[in-house]
Amino acid sequence: MPREVRERQMLDAAVATFARHGYRAASMDGIAELAGVSKPLVYLYLNSKEDLFTACIRREAAALVRAVRHGVDPATPPDRQLWEGLGAFFTHTAEHPDGWAVLHNQARTSGEPFAREVATMRADLVAFVTELIAAAAREAHDDPELGDREVAGLAHALVGAAESLAGWADTDGSVTAKEAASTLMNFAWAGLGNLMEGERWTPR
Amino acid sequence: MPREVRERQMLDAAVATFARHGYRAASMDGIAELAGVSKPLVYLYLNSKEDLFTACIRREAAALVRAVRHGVDPATPPDRQLWEGLGAFFTHTAEHPDGWAVLHNQARTSGEPFAREVATMRADLVAFVTELIAAAAREAHDDPELGDREVAGLAHALVGAAESLAGWADTDGSVTAKEAASTLMNFAWAGLGNLMEGERWTPR
Repeated sequence: MPREVRERQMLDAAVATFARHGYRAASMDGIAELAGVSKPLVYLYLNSKEDLFTACIRREAAALVRAVRHGVDPATPPDRQLWEGLGAFFTHTAEHPDGWAVLHNQARTSGEPFAREVATMRADLVAFVTELIAAAAREAHDDPELGDREVAGLAHALVGAAESLAGWADTDGSVTAKEAASTLMNFAWAGLGNLMEGERWTPR
Repeated sequence: MPREVRERQMLDAAVATFARHGYRAASMDGIAELAGVSKPLVYLYLNSKEDLFTACIRREAAALVRAVRHGVDPATPPDRQLWEGLGAFFTHTAEHPDGWAVLHNQARTSGEPFAREVATMRADLVAFVTELIAAAAREAHDDPELGDREVAGLAHALVGAAESLAGWADTDGSVTAKEAASTLMNFAWAGLGNLMEGERWTPR
């Protein structure tokens, strides 16, 4: 069996195990058994439990960011890009619940350096969304109503809302990816769309 | 010195220490020293490091939920209620950075049962926001356009967005509570407001 196939099997087993038991409680014996290999082979390939967990986080983070980026066609209008990006995000997290649990629950809650890996992925997503909102604002106005700083704030709000809804969908199994994407799109776009037209909320 | 005053000093010292060092690395010696009391007295009052951390989480969670609830006047229009609630949330988290760090960073990342304490507080906030959005929807329509399920989704989105913006404000010290509240209000209300008028986003 080629090395990359065997390594993939080990990472699949590790992601499933870390998702279920967390970093600390997961056992290398259990991971080796689930992968159908010997424990020394896991150490030979992945070096240590810490390196194995880091490899899981990096693989799952890269897969999620790739899914979102590939879901978006930059030639389409900004609202369509956001819709496709949200759809890709919720579909990916629904189809990879173990990967999402590793990123959202386990990696952030097992101390450094794991939390930093997730923070890097999150910063990637915020940067991507920031660029998307900024492009939409430029398209709506030559002299943009929305400053860089507010655009960055909106991107943070949107990513936080998406994470929260993915957690909701994960807890309530009846919430589909489409429903989560649609709820957030309606929440976000009508608001963003108004902002881009210069319509702001003011206290009555 | 009355017991409650001494206990408050210990909790203040503990919140500051846990916020800076995390649950595992924080030392009871350091907490006792910062509180200006002996370590045995800390154990006498708060029993164990685990109980002390739990007491910190509960105190800070209760203070945050209270601040948000007290910030809202139920006699005012729904958008004003949301605005006041967001203002109270961002003001409280900005004025209590150690409490926010304990809740948002440390408690969620130190395993059970601490994560459960924060999940309970978060469920309280989601329930409060859900009620607020549902009341707004009832006011806008006799036969509400928004079902219970979508209202719950919107509340999850809003709370996630608020957490994310509080984290952003905490990282970027130049973001004020007012600015964070205003960014989220503009993001959220124009969107929610449209939804309540039955205006939805649809793919072009």
